[in-house]
Amino acid sequence: MGRVTERRRVIRIRDGAVSTRPDTLVAEEPMEIRLGGKPLAITMRTPGDDFALAAGFLVSEGVLASAAELANIVYCAGATGEGGSNTYNVVDVRLADGVPVPDITLERNVYTTSSCGLCGKASLDAVRTTAHWPLDTSPDTPVRIEPATLSALPDRLRAAQRVFERTGGLHAAALFTTDGELLDIREDVGRHNAVDKIVGRALQQGQLPLSSCVLMVSGRASFELVQKAVMAGIPVLAAVSAPSSLAVDLAVETGLTLVGFLRGTSMNVYAGEHRLALSAAASTD
Amino acid sequence: MGRVTERRRVIRIRDGAVSTRPDTLVAEEPMEIRLGGKPLAITMRTPGDDFALAAGFLVSEGVLASAAELANIVYCAGATGEGGSNTYNVVDVRLADGVPVPDITLERNVYTTSSCGLCGKASLDAVRTTAHWPLDTSPDTPVRIEPATLSALPDRLRAAQRVFERTGGLHAAALFTTDGELLDIREDVGRHNAVDKIVGRALQQGQLPLSSCVLMVSGRASFELVQKAVMAGIPVLAAVSAPSSLAVDLAVETGLTLVGFLRGTSMNVYAGEHRLALSAAASTD
Repeated sequence: MGRVTERRRVIRIRDGAVSTRPDTLVAEEPMEIRLGGKPLAITMRTPGDDFALAAGFLVSEGVLASAAELANIVYCAGATGEGGSNTYNVVDVRLADGVPVPDITLERNVYTTSSCGLCGKASLDAVRTTAHWPLDTSPDTPVRIEPATLSALPDRLRAAQRVFERTGGLHAAALFTTDGELLDIREDVGRHNAVDKIVGRALQQGQLPLSSCVLMVSGRASFELVQKAVMAGIPVLAAVSAPSSLAVDLAVETGLTLVGFLRGTSMNVYAGEHRLALSAAASTD
Repeated sequence: MGRVTERRRVIRIRDGAVSTRPDTLVAEEPMEIRLGGKPLAITMRTPGDDFALAAGFLVSEGVLASAAELANIVYCAGATGEGGSNTYNVVDVRLADGVPVPDITLERNVYTTSSCGLCGKASLDAVRTTAHWPLDTSPDTPVRIEPATLSALPDRLRAAQRVFERTGGLHAAALFTTDGELLDIREDVGRHNAVDKIVGRALQQGQLPLSSCVLMVSGRASFELVQKAVMAGIPVLAAVSAPSSLAVDLAVETGLTLVGFLRGTSMNVYAGEHRLALSAAASTD
């Protein structure tokens, strides 16, 4: 369990020269998330931080909002691999007494689909109705961030990525303060898993909502990542690459500050510019 | 329908200078795939080639193997957006008479999870048992490819990408002959969708199995992409970036040739090297 990388033999070709050597790959294994013993979702993830991943997934789904609502999370002993060993690939989340368990049968479609960034109009509506912490859309928002602070984040994210250097195969998500201080970083084969691990860990530590934080992701900004930020109460999402149209639409609707193409001293702000400390004098149109 | 890009207003910051301008984003919209009227999966995709996407998804799932098994695919008229318009986001696939419709209720977990690269050991087994066209693992395989031919593919893929240049937000999948001739290319926000569109189109044109083709993808090689290649009978998968451990394991099991880090004259071969025309004299260990 918990192996973030694995070794495999590889044939390496460089300018016609052929050699065989061991190579380090990012580990990818299925994990089933159960809620009160009932299967809820399966995700392909990089092992490690599995309980945080399960907790963060349930925050994204609107099931969990605080550590007090969580009774415990365990690996299912009954989930055995070859030779009867525990696979450590099935986790069961038990909610605290009194916390409503969603009707999985009824809402199954929502759950299984949004586990992996798949969701329909129903999910767009669901975010609006279930978000525990609406983002502050007032021009006088207390959360204010300098563009120069954002510009410093990609280098800090990259410097903190430990596994990517060895495998080239991981997405990263990092949580920063609005002053640019790194709070947490997670890497995973799935970008949504990296964010769930960040959010789940924050829940476990009683830090939700993350209302004065910036979430930075190494890749693109999809609808799903915007949804996860909003559900955790994170007001600013910054991405190295492009957002999709639906990601921008949801950011505009919810008041999230969405920054894309964050590279060097350049960035594009797609929504929520009221949180950026922009000099009015410098503005041109 | 079918809009691959959308325009949104963006605030652009360059070295402290702030300007507002329209920006082109890749379109992302949910699509529900129904089989004989019953919801099967939802995927977030870039609109366009929707019928090919649905058909290719069903090839990956082992439901479809030839155009003759497909009666028709239609947009559901009942799926209406605001103002009663057709959303063009729900497609219904009807199988030809006599083609067994899988028991969706029973196998629902498999279907919804593997729609998005999510799958467990069950799916690993499923690939082995349902693949219509086992790959040729003989050392005398008729499919043989020169490393120099593979090295030429990334530039050809990039040259053929039309939407990425404008948005920076798309994954691409391309189908080549073993001589490096481009047969088809598709772009999508989801890498699995791009591959499904390639495979679905091939099914519609009666070209499955794609047993003398190379599939090239712009990003990483996950378990899911290996699975889709194998289900379409494609013997060679090449990726610009890293594979995961499970992707390599499945490639080894099924006999797929898996090439990663294909850049310039360099590449790593993780499985199925019997299809590469390697000079034995150049080999070192």
